[in-house]
Amino acid sequence: MNDLLLRAARGEQVERPPVWLMRQAGRILPQYRALRGKLSGFKELVETPELACEVTIQPVDELNVDAAIIFSDILVVPEVMGLSYEMIPGKGPMFPMTIQQGSDVDNLLSGEQAAVQLDYVYKAIELTKQELAGRVPLIGFAGAPWTVMAYMLEGSGSKTFSKARRFLYRQPIASRVLLQKITDTTIAYLKKQVKAGADLIQIFDSWAGILGPEQYAEFSLPYIRQICEAITEVPVTVFAKNAWFALDAVGQLDCDVVGIDWNTNPAEARSRVGASKTLQGNLDPCLLYAEPETIQQATRDMIEGFGHQQYIVNLGHGVYPDTPLDNVKVFVNEVLSYSS
Amino acid sequence: MNDLLLRAARGEQVERPPVWLMRQAGRILPQYRALRGKLSGFKELVETPELACEVTIQPVDELNVDAAIIFSDILVVPEVMGLSYEMIPGKGPMFPMTIQQGSDVDNLLSGEQAAVQLDYVYKAIELTKQELAGRVPLIGFAGAPWTVMAYMLEGSGSKTFSKARRFLYRQPIASRVLLQKITDTTIAYLKKQVKAGADLIQIFDSWAGILGPEQYAEFSLPYIRQICEAITEVPVTVFAKNAWFALDAVGQLDCDVVGIDWNTNPAEARSRVGASKTLQGNLDPCLLYAEPETIQQATRDMIEGFGHQQYIVNLGHGVYPDTPLDNVKVFVNEVLSYSS
Repeated sequence: MNDLLLRAARGEQVERPPVWLMRQAGRILPQYRALRGKLSGFKELVETPELACEVTIQPVDELNVDAAIIFSDILVVPEVMGLSYEMIPGKGPMFPMTIQQGSDVDNLLSGEQAAVQLDYVYKAIELTKQELAGRVPLIGFAGAPWTVMAYMLEGSGSKTFSKARRFLYRQPIASRVLLQKITDTTIAYLKKQVKAGADLIQIFDSWAGILGPEQYAEFSLPYIRQICEAITEVPVTVFAKNAWFALDAVGQLDCDVVGIDWNTNPAEARSRVGASKTLQGNLDPCLLYAEPETIQQATRDMIEGFGHQQYIVNLGHGVYPDTPLDNVKVFVNEVLSYSS
Repeated sequence: MNDLLLRAARGEQVERPPVWLMRQAGRILPQYRALRGKLSGFKELVETPELACEVTIQPVDELNVDAAIIFSDILVVPEVMGLSYEMIPGKGPMFPMTIQQGSDVDNLLSGEQAAVQLDYVYKAIELTKQELAGRVPLIGFAGAPWTVMAYMLEGSGSKTFSKARRFLYRQPIASRVLLQKITDTTIAYLKKQVKAGADLIQIFDSWAGILGPEQYAEFSLPYIRQICEAITEVPVTVFAKNAWFALDAVGQLDCDVVGIDWNTNPAEARSRVGASKTLQGNLDPCLLYAEPETIQQATRDMIEGFGHQQYIVNLGHGVYPDTPLDNVKVFVNEVLSYSS
């Protein structure tokens, strides 16, 4: 098995840094678009283990990346807690029902009761592990409780998530109950992912950066901490996007890898996170629209900046769906051919 | 005249820190909503000096804030350069035409030729100065060239502004030509605002935070620097939202005040910006949804954090339009009654 990712995550010596891309299984690949065109919608793909397995492996075949990440969505968690989502083409996720008041939180399922319903994810992981047959590790994932809560309150994506943040200020007790329910569900969910075969777990706190430092310390970090402490079997990556102000605290979590966005340069990231963690990131996804030479140079500069040990090459955010595939390959190949 | 704002901006001693709110002239005020309901749209308000004057003064009457800010929009600049905008209710700005390629940049007007067309803004400033009769200073403003360019390329608001950022990577030369044209227009525009009576100028780099540090240094800062160096008659505030990574460099600009968003705590802001500038900000606008006691406590804590000299109280972003007016008053009154 190509275990570069796992060795890098654990801080062990590697010949070169491993590389994968957030959202590598998706619209950048023609084979994904072909399959997706035949289906009723995004959720059919997520909920059918054979299809999720197929698109999970596509980027491994096409790009030679060092990891697969199971094709799914962070919003499957609120769904099994009681708030189902729809994926509106061109617009993103939409929740027909949202949390309106404290009492709505009481009606939500949580923990094992909720997590058992995500059987299609565990089956997809099992299938994918079989199909991968040890070629590369398989990453499982979930949203951080704050990010999941933000969608449950806001009902869709938002620039400010002001409904969700208002709830934190107006209903702090109900907020904590909700966050704990999401956390319990997420821990049960991730443990089952690991049992099904996930080799590493990534926690996406995609909306970390819209909280101020104090709210982040109160309403996000403690719940991520619980998850990190519960998942002991495999390495854990925490990616708190745009939460540069919390990188010091994230560096203190019981996790192995810290994701870095493209606002934070390598030296600042290392100095904030400290020496003990592996860092992952952080090329601006827009750079993959540039000329090949620009991409190659920026990739080399980035690796030199982070250093080629304790480092996993990735973008600073998910790859944009209209990125030319050839440019993605230039990026990946630059890492594959890297020798220090 | 209540010149607290100007004294604080220049770093002179003040009895208490001045207070105003970004977007204070707008939907939070019932008198604004009443007037707006009678009009054809947002642009009628912006383009009619008597109406712009009226809504500019409303928050001074209603809230007793220490400054007025002329009611206008940063998108009047691209409009007179050749790309007109529409304001879609509930959605925000939309440009029927955008910059698609380098040659589109050549057709744009710039400098004096463009700025003279904004006569309705200068008239609104003159009228407002008359009506204010020295009660409080009047703030003029413009978008930073990068932020204005982002709209001219993207055509609307966006979470990632990936079209605009792609243009920076693919068309760096045309990008610089465009940024210089916007800069020349903005300087001419702001000089005319000052001539009409603006007592302080604020530059809004609302989309600073979607650039990485290197792109920000290359495509935003140099153009803001030109503006700061050109506007010598009145104090200048630079608000580079979410660009924490650039606060050191912003602190080196020839400006007087640096705006701070709510991700950055007072101590970090001061340490990054350095000792010489006045800081402005940075209460989370969502905090104004909280209980009065919470608002009062957070406001006091914030003033203690920033210190009551070299400091202008504001939010870390524009006030959200559905904020209860009483809560806005609690915030303002807490500052008005502040004594160290």
